[in-house]
Amino acid sequence: MRISTLSVGDELICGQVTDTNAGTIAARLLEDGLRVQRHLVVGDNEADIISALTELGRISDAIIVTGGLGPTVDDLTSRAAARATGRRLVIHEEARNHARTMSSKLENLIVCPLNDKQAMIPTKSALIPNPNGTACGFHLMHNGSFMFFLPGVPAEMIVMLRETVIPFVLSRVPSKRVIRTVSLNLFGPCEAEVDEMLLGIARPEQGLTLGICVTFPRIKVTLRAEAATDDGATDLLVPAVRVMRERLKEYCYSSGDVSMEDTVAELFRERCLMLSLAESCSGGLIAKRITDIPGSSRYFCEGLVTYSNHAKKRLLGVSDEVLNTFGAVSSECASAMAKGVRLASDSDLGLAVTGIAGPDGGSEDKPAGTVYISLAAPDGCWTKRFQFNGNRDEVRVLTTWTALDWLRRYLLKRE
Amino acid sequence: MRISTLSVGDELICGQVTDTNAGTIAARLLEDGLRVQRHLVVGDNEADIISALTELGRISDAIIVTGGLGPTVDDLTSRAAARATGRRLVIHEEARNHARTMSSKLENLIVCPLNDKQAMIPTKSALIPNPNGTACGFHLMHNGSFMFFLPGVPAEMIVMLRETVIPFVLSRVPSKRVIRTVSLNLFGPCEAEVDEMLLGIARPEQGLTLGICVTFPRIKVTLRAEAATDDGATDLLVPAVRVMRERLKEYCYSSGDVSMEDTVAELFRERCLMLSLAESCSGGLIAKRITDIPGSSRYFCEGLVTYSNHAKKRLLGVSDEVLNTFGAVSSECASAMAKGVRLASDSDLGLAVTGIAGPDGGSEDKPAGTVYISLAAPDGCWTKRFQFNGNRDEVRVLTTWTALDWLRRYLLKRE
Repeated sequence: MRISTLSVGDELICGQVTDTNAGTIAARLLEDGLRVQRHLVVGDNEADIISALTELGRISDAIIVTGGLGPTVDDLTSRAAARATGRRLVIHEEARNHARTMSSKLENLIVCPLNDKQAMIPTKSALIPNPNGTACGFHLMHNGSFMFFLPGVPAEMIVMLRETVIPFVLSRVPSKRVIRTVSLNLFGPCEAEVDEMLLGIARPEQGLTLGICVTFPRIKVTLRAEAATDDGATDLLVPAVRVMRERLKEYCYSSGDVSMEDTVAELFRERCLMLSLAESCSGGLIAKRITDIPGSSRYFCEGLVTYSNHAKKRLLGVSDEVLNTFGAVSSECASAMAKGVRLASDSDLGLAVTGIAGPDGGSEDKPAGTVYISLAAPDGCWTKRFQFNGNRDEVRVLTTWTALDWLRRYLLKRE
Repeated sequence: MRISTLSVGDELICGQVTDTNAGTIAARLLEDGLRVQRHLVVGDNEADIISALTELGRISDAIIVTGGLGPTVDDLTSRAAARATGRRLVIHEEARNHARTMSSKLENLIVCPLNDKQAMIPTKSALIPNPNGTACGFHLMHNGSFMFFLPGVPAEMIVMLRETVIPFVLSRVPSKRVIRTVSLNLFGPCEAEVDEMLLGIARPEQGLTLGICVTFPRIKVTLRAEAATDDGATDLLVPAVRVMRERLKEYCYSSGDVSMEDTVAELFRERCLMLSLAESCSGGLIAKRITDIPGSSRYFCEGLVTYSNHAKKRLLGVSDEVLNTFGAVSSECASAMAKGVRLASDSDLGLAVTGIAGPDGGSEDKPAGTVYISLAAPDGCWTKRFQFNGNRDEVRVLTTWTALDWLRRYLLKRE
């Protein structure tokens, strides 16, 4: 089945807002073995929408359109859909009732006459319910193509895609192949190293393919098995995943959509340990990521962003001697910070980072990107020097990832 | 001039990576008064690239293609370009020398035979120099359309766009109109309020247009003047910007690309004041944003992420009485935290936040999204309760923005 997406919006075509709907739709469809062939983006211009629908219609069995269903005058998709398919635009009672009910439910919204515009849909179309917003979607069939029209708001769109569009499309796919995928998330090795570690795992001729996707600084590897039956796909996938996991070992921190933060949180909860942080160059970003997880107060005690030497002395008990002899960016300072925060906060683990995020502040010995990370625990204190490449933001991100990954590896080793 | 963009890549069409090149190109072209009419995305598939070029060629005077110029077998753009335009693919000596020189310059890269593939370009094309990478771009003219081919790496693409593509396109625009824009960044009012405040400022019939773009939680308004001459555009723009600034008043925190963090940093530097933070529900995100700015150590002393009550008592001196009588999420606790961190760190300003980021932890009195922000300064201490709507992440982002905006407003009032 040949599928295209069309995103409509001046803010998209002008580059003010990045279109994420097309990617979300493609990724979601791929889970069901459906591939999008092209994405098209046009502005809020009736002629452009009409010609886009016409062109895509010629080469697609299904077109998923997002955007331009809103109540304001620059929302033109319904009218363009009617023109492009030779239909009239009529008020749909059910859509009108929905828009009115939803408007009165949503706070800060007044039911205004404009909302009736959202109830105008082309004749010979079926409604697509929108549980999260005022504008219903609709779908129709024209010259052999199914056309689906959804609002551009991602949270509304995704539900309508999942609940109506995908089941409808799947029901029309003649000989469905079963597709099973497993994704693993890695931190540490570079793409070329992952490529080498996974050599020979993919067997495309048997329907087993491998994708490697780098989203700085992590790598996602996805193994995808395609077969005639559910059992066939599983038989293909399971042994390959086992081999993949063995080869990737501790580089793999999670599977699917589980984040590094989630993994670390889960380990802390299981081990009933309390954490405190002392951050210098990462400026609070580690604490921010730890507390991204609801319920983090169960294992996170406190985080000290000790930017100044004064704060390192006052809050962490780092001595003048360490600061004067070795400097604030040193192995000695990092371990003093980690031990200091562990002791002062009475936590099980104290993690500290100190470094030079750049662009200024580096020296020949310690250029920008030099970072010391230290972990103080009941069974010892470990400190390591890292040299990260990149701009200020990248150095801070790498520092944070490395620190979280270190916590993960330490916690994994404890029973 | 009708302009289209084409982004090529399996990772884009599958939704693994969001295409940002198309938006970057459109936004950059718009600064010079050139509008993109459509964006198209296709995968690494020769037939799809050829048909995309053919279709876009029919409706565009210029096509800017990104992606698929790399050294690996799935980079097919050059070959597709040659086929689509009836040219042969030949090794271009200058491109080959460039690829070799760059490869040896870039670390961790070995000159391999594959790189010669990057030097294969269609006949009757002109090179587009790439100062930041191995693959040169090229451009050619086919059936009345200019086609530009650039690598997909954003940092390489943008330089080639700016230095070669845009000057070339502008030299071919017959009667160039002068365009001047001014953008202001706002925090606080909603889109409808901004709309009302700016009523009547745009005069499209005279060439003065207004765009409002919401990027949660800030709003960017852009005024754009188009005229035959430089003076004409300036005369149109300057008085309108003055009126706009007067109406928006203190909601406007910066213009152009200056961030809220930059604005606050600049004010701190000018006033020679030192800041310390005590964060609960924002979990270090305020400290992170303050320290995003290089040189922030000049005005940022320390940040305490006091997640537990124990930490609030130990580090900030919040009394048991306050915690037991009013709770950790209260006006009393927030002001005790702000005063506590100001005193303990010996800073000029102490800013504190405490609240319920959610989704759990709320009560009828204090539902999720309840946040207290307090600012302790030499001339007083102010505390305010906010009720933010949204999920955990949104509540934390709004808390951070509101806190930074409060610092900005306070600093503006001090001479």
